[in-house]
Amino acid sequence: MQNCNPELLLPPWLKTFSAGNCGSLLSDDERMRFVIELARQNILHGTGGPFGAAVFERLTGRLISAGVNLVVRSNCSHAHAEMVALAIAQHHLSSYTLSRPDFPEYELVTSSEPCAMCYGAIIWSGISRLVCGAYTSDTEKTGFDEGAKPENWIAELEKRKIEVLTGIRRIDACSVLKVYSDNDGLVYNGQSRQ
Amino acid sequence: MQNCNPELLLPPWLKTFSAGNCGSLLSDDERMRFVIELARQNILHGTGGPFGAAVFERLTGRLISAGVNLVVRSNCSHAHAEMVALAIAQHHLSSYTLSRPDFPEYELVTSSEPCAMCYGAIIWSGISRLVCGAYTSDTEKTGFDEGAKPENWIAELEKRKIEVLTGIRRIDACSVLKVYSDNDGLVYNGQSRQ
Repeated sequence: MQNCNPELLLPPWLKTFSAGNCGSLLSDDERMRFVIELARQNILHGTGGPFGAAVFERLTGRLISAGVNLVVRSNCSHAHAEMVALAIAQHHLSSYTLSRPDFPEYELVTSSEPCAMCYGAIIWSGISRLVCGAYTSDTEKTGFDEGAKPENWIAELEKRKIEVLTGIRRIDACSVLKVYSDNDGLVYNGQSRQ
Repeated sequence: MQNCNPELLLPPWLKTFSAGNCGSLLSDDERMRFVIELARQNILHGTGGPFGAAVFERLTGRLISAGVNLVVRSNCSHAHAEMVALAIAQHHLSSYTLSRPDFPEYELVTSSEPCAMCYGAIIWSGISRLVCGAYTSDTEKTGFDEGAKPENWIAELEKRKIEVLTGIRRIDACSVLKVYSDNDGLVYNGQSRQ
């Protein structure tokens, strides 16, 4: 029985790239442009799948954490961009929730709508707003199984006081998915035993 | 912007306890007894919520990894017992999926049915079987929001070649939830902003 501690293998370029974009990003458009660029850089550097996400202070647009898909690199099927960004933000703020009376509100911006797992993780994260680029159907066209979310997943988040906005810069977000697909990027669904 | 690497803070007792139970556990009953005891030990040691999970080689019952809920301790809302066990197993086997032609089949045994996030994570994990103790409704009675899974979540897993068995040693699993509840254990749902 192993009890070794798994860790996320963050690629070195991520820190440099994020540091170069550390000004406040005030609009949804700017924040989405940033996470789509994270997704593109992740492909260019060969460090993972075509997905980027970031946590921002909702009001000021201050960047708290940036994540990219690290599933293959980290040998961890949980390491989707959203999960990485949320885990880094919580670690940085020393809190298991981003919703605390003494915190400002935080939001998650992600280049594609969350899969079944990330949808659940968003419920527990404490963010107050979710902004998405590509639709689930766009991601599925690339060959990724997104799992089955409840049909009314947006309403389920809103019921829990999480605002949801989707389709922001969708064409740009889809163009990164297409680059990945056109270059035969690895589609790392869990089940090879079919 | 922070790019620090979050990590799971595995409690020292977990390694010792697991090492003492490293023989093969052949039946569902034995495997469930083990994960329920993990949940109980997690409460007794004050290291987290009343949940335990483990990955086993399905045929031989060899223990691959053991996980407990580490949300508060690790400042990470993803750190549910199932997520911890799956991440350790994948890290140990150096594979982002537990489903590979050169691997035996693996299963996840968990003291309570998975929440919305863990249900999604199970899809990506590569396990071929899921065995659960307490029902979602039992966990919700303790005050935990389990999120909204698709109504037919078991069928969604089975569609992806993951067998599901639930209600194994349910009374024992519920007794650990009750101990936690009776002792006013922290209910760490994500949203405090209601």
